[in-house]
Amino acid sequence: MSWEDNVRKVVPYTPGEQPKIKNIIKLNTNENPYPPAPEVTKILEGMSVDDFRKYPDPTCDELVSAIADFYKLDKENVFVGVGSDDVLAMAFLTFFNSKDREKKVLFPDITYSFYDVWADLFKIPYRQVPLNEDFTITPQDYFGENGGVVIANPNAPTGVLLPLDQIEEIVKRNPDVVVIVDEAYIDFGGVSALPLIEKYENLLVVQTFSKSRSMAGMRIGYAFGSKKIIKYLLDAKFSFNSYTMNMPALSLGAAAVRDREYFEQCREKVIATRERIKPLLSELGFTFGDSKTNFIFAKHKEKHGKDIFAYLRQNGIIVRRFDLPRISEYLRISIGTDEEMDTLIRVLKEIV
Amino acid sequence: MSWEDNVRKVVPYTPGEQPKIKNIIKLNTNENPYPPAPEVTKILEGMSVDDFRKYPDPTCDELVSAIADFYKLDKENVFVGVGSDDVLAMAFLTFFNSKDREKKVLFPDITYSFYDVWADLFKIPYRQVPLNEDFTITPQDYFGENGGVVIANPNAPTGVLLPLDQIEEIVKRNPDVVVIVDEAYIDFGGVSALPLIEKYENLLVVQTFSKSRSMAGMRIGYAFGSKKIIKYLLDAKFSFNSYTMNMPALSLGAAAVRDREYFEQCREKVIATRERIKPLLSELGFTFGDSKTNFIFAKHKEKHGKDIFAYLRQNGIIVRRFDLPRISEYLRISIGTDEEMDTLIRVLKEIV
Repeated sequence: MSWEDNVRKVVPYTPGEQPKIKNIIKLNTNENPYPPAPEVTKILEGMSVDDFRKYPDPTCDELVSAIADFYKLDKENVFVGVGSDDVLAMAFLTFFNSKDREKKVLFPDITYSFYDVWADLFKIPYRQVPLNEDFTITPQDYFGENGGVVIANPNAPTGVLLPLDQIEEIVKRNPDVVVIVDEAYIDFGGVSALPLIEKYENLLVVQTFSKSRSMAGMRIGYAFGSKKIIKYLLDAKFSFNSYTMNMPALSLGAAAVRDREYFEQCREKVIATRERIKPLLSELGFTFGDSKTNFIFAKHKEKHGKDIFAYLRQNGIIVRRFDLPRISEYLRISIGTDEEMDTLIRVLKEIV
Repeated sequence: MSWEDNVRKVVPYTPGEQPKIKNIIKLNTNENPYPPAPEVTKILEGMSVDDFRKYPDPTCDELVSAIADFYKLDKENVFVGVGSDDVLAMAFLTFFNSKDREKKVLFPDITYSFYDVWADLFKIPYRQVPLNEDFTITPQDYFGENGGVVIANPNAPTGVLLPLDQIEEIVKRNPDVVVIVDEAYIDFGGVSALPLIEKYENLLVVQTFSKSRSMAGMRIGYAFGSKKIIKYLLDAKFSFNSYTMNMPALSLGAAAVRDREYFEQCREKVIATRERIKPLLSELGFTFGDSKTNFIFAKHKEKHGKDIFAYLRQNGIIVRRFDLPRISEYLRISIGTDEEMDTLIRVLKEIV
């Protein structure tokens, strides 16, 4: 007998690289190429260290109110956490507790690769449902008996969007379990499931400040749901850590969300760059689905993904590659500024 | 069957009040009355919002290095989290997984009231061991077969310190389980169990920036342990949330810990105020243990704790009272500035 026998042993998720090298074009973790809203700077400049002395507001009222205002919701429909990873981890812990081990939580085989890690961590039985060849989802695959459903929409790393009526169909057919729709990339061209929370109290919609609001470094994620589902999530959160959001996250996060116009401008710029780049990548022999995200998931008709990845890296451009079944030939390329993408295209021309 | 049947239902921890009223003397959540180290201001002033665009360093290297330097440890001996609550929650999840449900995790009946909440959240069997009448711990109570041990030292809310040789005895007698020593208040006069991590690989020592480093608002906690125990904790953490610490927490936290002299000054001031106040409280008819923390846990020989609490509150002073067995007559009074404590004594004189 050893203390190690009692340890929960897990294989952790591997996050994308955060290189400390300067002068690199970083297209590997889907950050926004534009800075946060101007008001964030103003609030940062007025921040006093003496405020750090006291505990932050455990209800996160300033941030929750700002999000509720933006989306025209009641505060009781909003949950916030330390990035959408924290929100999703708490949601897995809170909602996927079927006593029947045969009722498995369902999510696609190719999707955000943290879902199976959370399921393993919390010992939640799960089944990975294969995506179709073109990376689309067949809603019917999620209609059988299960312990919960998680759909990233648009899906990552594929970038493919499931239309809202099909999302609704999945939610409607699963009244006995919680359905999580992970909308980390929804602001780049998708239609959010947010309006459905009024109709389905078992729906949780998760979003993040890390992509469309340029605040990956601040770690802010949030979820929408019925007042009942949010209350359950809050109870679990307050059983884990009373004060998850620090003072800068609360006040700078609220500032970031208040500026609707800047938000619209940024996401439109990212979408415009993405659409401009698509034909250029096609010309170079890449194929990819119709991305509605701030990345393009592409493979080349001749060159191996591994080789292109290495060549880009040698030339100061980092993209993401997953050494996983079915997708090892693909590269996930975040949408940077127009200048960054032009450099990418130029370097790609050299190799393909 | 309803989706609610699968919900993990819990009774959350209730944190101390964070009132939004100004001009209040806040002695209820053991914050430090002095601001963070001067370098924190300098780093804050140099902070650029453009840095928030990217994900923070998931290894938290800057902060981990600063803590390792301060305590003369290797980085592999240090874990950081979103306040010591986050560190403790992860430690409960990681280390208390005995397959034998009869092997219960042990902690005192009067202690930090989050321990039983975490145990309930993660469905960990536990037994609360009664403190002695004078709120001391009998180490022998923790020698039997168990699933793990958690000792707050000094204990909260009692303020009572267990000498290091008795802590060591508990660790030594429990080689088959993890022993967590929660040292949130150790810098105010206790002796840390830190040196024991070299001898006992099953020991985890948890500390925080919230009290002695005046950074409650920044949410930074940390743990020391053998490289093996820290690795297990990191694996679980990276299975929960890759990026727990946001950019301000990393850089401002590192700045706070680098200034050893300021840290020493602050804690000495708090200790001096505490020792000055003790005889004044005694004169007023209060009894209390020999606090080695930044609070005094006191009851009055005649007046009810509830009444004193209410009178203080009416007079703009908030302290903490726990409506729990054995301690409902007590008030936990944080050590504020000398001026704040003088006001407290003056108001207490009016009622007792």
